[in-house]
Amino acid sequence: MRMFDPVEAVKEFIRHPSVSTDAQFAEGMEGARAHVVGLLKDMGLAVEVIATPLHPVVIAKRRGQPDWPHVVIYGHYDVQPADPLDLWETPAFEPIIREGRLYGRGAADNKGPMMVHIAAAARLLEKHPDLPLNLTFLIEGEEEIGSPSFAEVLANHAEDLRGDFVLLSDTQSPSTEQLALTVALRGIVSLEVEVFGPKGDLHSGLHGGAVYNPIQALTEICASLHNADGSVAIPGFYDAVAEVESWEREEIDKLGNDLEAYRDSIGVAGFLPGRGMSPFEVTRLLPTLEFNGIGGGYQGMGEKTIIPSRAFAKITCRLVANQDPVEIERLVHRAIEDRCPPEVRLKIRRGHAGGPYRVVPPDRANTPADQNAHLATAFRAAESAIAHIFGRPPLYLSEGGSVPIISEINRVLGMDCVMLGMFTPLDNLHAPNEGFDLELFRKGIDVSERILAGVAGV
Amino acid sequence: MRMFDPVEAVKEFIRHPSVSTDAQFAEGMEGARAHVVGLLKDMGLAVEVIATPLHPVVIAKRRGQPDWPHVVIYGHYDVQPADPLDLWETPAFEPIIREGRLYGRGAADNKGPMMVHIAAAARLLEKHPDLPLNLTFLIEGEEEIGSPSFAEVLANHAEDLRGDFVLLSDTQSPSTEQLALTVALRGIVSLEVEVFGPKGDLHSGLHGGAVYNPIQALTEICASLHNADGSVAIPGFYDAVAEVESWEREEIDKLGNDLEAYRDSIGVAGFLPGRGMSPFEVTRLLPTLEFNGIGGGYQGMGEKTIIPSRAFAKITCRLVANQDPVEIERLVHRAIEDRCPPEVRLKIRRGHAGGPYRVVPPDRANTPADQNAHLATAFRAAESAIAHIFGRPPLYLSEGGSVPIISEINRVLGMDCVMLGMFTPLDNLHAPNEGFDLELFRKGIDVSERILAGVAGV
Repeated sequence: MRMFDPVEAVKEFIRHPSVSTDAQFAEGMEGARAHVVGLLKDMGLAVEVIATPLHPVVIAKRRGQPDWPHVVIYGHYDVQPADPLDLWETPAFEPIIREGRLYGRGAADNKGPMMVHIAAAARLLEKHPDLPLNLTFLIEGEEEIGSPSFAEVLANHAEDLRGDFVLLSDTQSPSTEQLALTVALRGIVSLEVEVFGPKGDLHSGLHGGAVYNPIQALTEICASLHNADGSVAIPGFYDAVAEVESWEREEIDKLGNDLEAYRDSIGVAGFLPGRGMSPFEVTRLLPTLEFNGIGGGYQGMGEKTIIPSRAFAKITCRLVANQDPVEIERLVHRAIEDRCPPEVRLKIRRGHAGGPYRVVPPDRANTPADQNAHLATAFRAAESAIAHIFGRPPLYLSEGGSVPIISEINRVLGMDCVMLGMFTPLDNLHAPNEGFDLELFRKGIDVSERILAGVAGV
Repeated sequence: MRMFDPVEAVKEFIRHPSVSTDAQFAEGMEGARAHVVGLLKDMGLAVEVIATPLHPVVIAKRRGQPDWPHVVIYGHYDVQPADPLDLWETPAFEPIIREGRLYGRGAADNKGPMMVHIAAAARLLEKHPDLPLNLTFLIEGEEEIGSPSFAEVLANHAEDLRGDFVLLSDTQSPSTEQLALTVALRGIVSLEVEVFGPKGDLHSGLHGGAVYNPIQALTEICASLHNADGSVAIPGFYDAVAEVESWEREEIDKLGNDLEAYRDSIGVAGFLPGRGMSPFEVTRLLPTLEFNGIGGGYQGMGEKTIIPSRAFAKITCRLVANQDPVEIERLVHRAIEDRCPPEVRLKIRRGHAGGPYRVVPPDRANTPADQNAHLATAFRAAESAIAHIFGRPPLYLSEGGSVPIISEINRVLGMDCVMLGMFTPLDNLHAPNEGFDLELFRKGIDVSERILAGVAGV
């Protein structure tokens, strides 16, 4: 086997527009999958493509002695939609390097970061063909749509997939200088709320005043879902929220608290009051209810004087440790039903959902006694490699984002995760002009190689 | 001159897609204008096409003795956008007759009803080439976008346009059996409200909880604009509203009060409480604030977990007699500003506006003593013609819709209007599958001919 060029491999990966939510991109999904299958086969791994009702999962195995440590590496080959396309400086699916950064949809989520571990494993195996390590790659194509097929694949392939821990990079580091090991992820619950009024659009002059406008009803429902302090106004929403431990806030506080810089970077006029927490803590440690989209009636140029027949809103909640997505979905659903006026009709569609996750790293006061020894080794190897390569130890950060498969892996297979943050706030995830830092990429490969070497004991 | 076929003339009119709000339809505007110019020229009228910053106005004159009565006939050659296109049973700009009805965008608003008066005048002039009547057609192309150029054209051509009254059909009758003469129109004020949050869409996981979501802010603003009883929650909104006179409610009550039929026809689950008035009265006699459209964030298939950078709503208010559009616009604008949270930025764009209008028909208790004699003659001729041709006298109805040019004509030139309702609730105005009853069309031409003959005294 000859080591591939990791940057070229990511560029080729981006050229396949693997938008999992949209059936028009079937060819891009297939191309991205074939690309990663090729790389893993070239490394000498036994690759299986597992069919699912939607997008197949790639499983690649290297097996030696059963008593060798077993690391499972996770990644996803699908990406978010690229729209609004007109806001991209260069086409979303044509990778281009500018000033040490690689731009393109999926560069940072998750094609670049996934390639960190593929390249690290390839290089380590090149150096140590007899490496005493069992290795499994688990690469799915439905992460951006909530991984509907994933739990079943985990259950059906539990034998192959039950290793000592999972290593992955689908979380953020504060900067290219300060790496993070992610210790918590928020869960997610999605809903689409649709309000129906008249059976067709009505002339607002002929009927206005008698008819409950569906936009009015929808905005009243939406406006009722938050309190003035920005907290979620749904009974029971916070009941199960785990108490925040002091080390969690301390690690976040090490990030610094430059609110002005944060405000300027995202361009807002101010932040929501945070119930005694800073915006940096709030976005990581508290649950939310967000509106991702709203629509109804005439949205084109000029004016159209109608009462629309329907209006809809797309909502997601982010959950923190101990909150149950099924229960939260039930509470939100019920609150919306309770608040919908009887003059209109309501339809609520459930979207994807996933639980929150939290792991306590070793050497913390309250580390569980029964923590897997290889997991602890991996955490310590990661800390030492990051301190050496970046000149600073990692932060152990709770993350605001959701990788629902993490809690699924934990729920179905009982494994914990080592999450190496490989993108940064500059990378425009889920937005136009997504990019990925190539120096961070190279250093990340070094860190990942040391983690795998540490666990293998070489 | 040979009399044209009125139905063929409307069909040809519809084939020109004259959507005034969208610059892509420039050719359709031009074609529709040329069509009506051709008809008026064929009648022997002196036609002028008056340029404006946007869509030209057609003025066509027949002049005899200065002491002859002078009737001004108004119409508009522009139409509403046809979208949503997929809900049309046959293409919007391909006229087709099914079961005695002519379908196509503009069939009822205003191409068919306008043709009533063109055909009536043509036929009357064919019978009486020496008819003692001064006649002016005033046909604009900006009615559906608020007639921005109209007031100036009226002022610049006041000499030509100042007749005894205006005759037009751009209002509704209850049915093809029961005609209405419209005696009031609501005014209109349009606003577009836009709320800006972060400078770009943000990942709702990484930033959710700290950032005031623009959709949330917008829905809070929108939800604050109505009281629980459906009335408008803006201080001062109702201050100037004229007291409703008893004959206005009596005429509306003659329509009947079949709420169930109304409810079923528009397909709503219920009506707003009406402050002691029925839905039939509310939609004609009270002012409103309606949401015509709302949008923001991701509206496509599936999910996209973002906090959007902006959200907007399109709003129109309908005003009743004595309310001033400038003052109402100021009150709504200020209420929205007051209610916008400081964490987001607000932009309010003013759209088109027009005043309300009311005329008191002759032989009512409180008829103004100085009413124009030719106007009174026209009302009486209309009542008698309708009673004869339809077997029932007309209702004198206040209308919920807005024809802002009516109040402009009244304001600029001091003329009142005789409004013959030539479309019905079945006609899907401003909606897909707009249609026009051809039997009503033929009878309407007879009524219009008798009005003109009555005023001319032939």
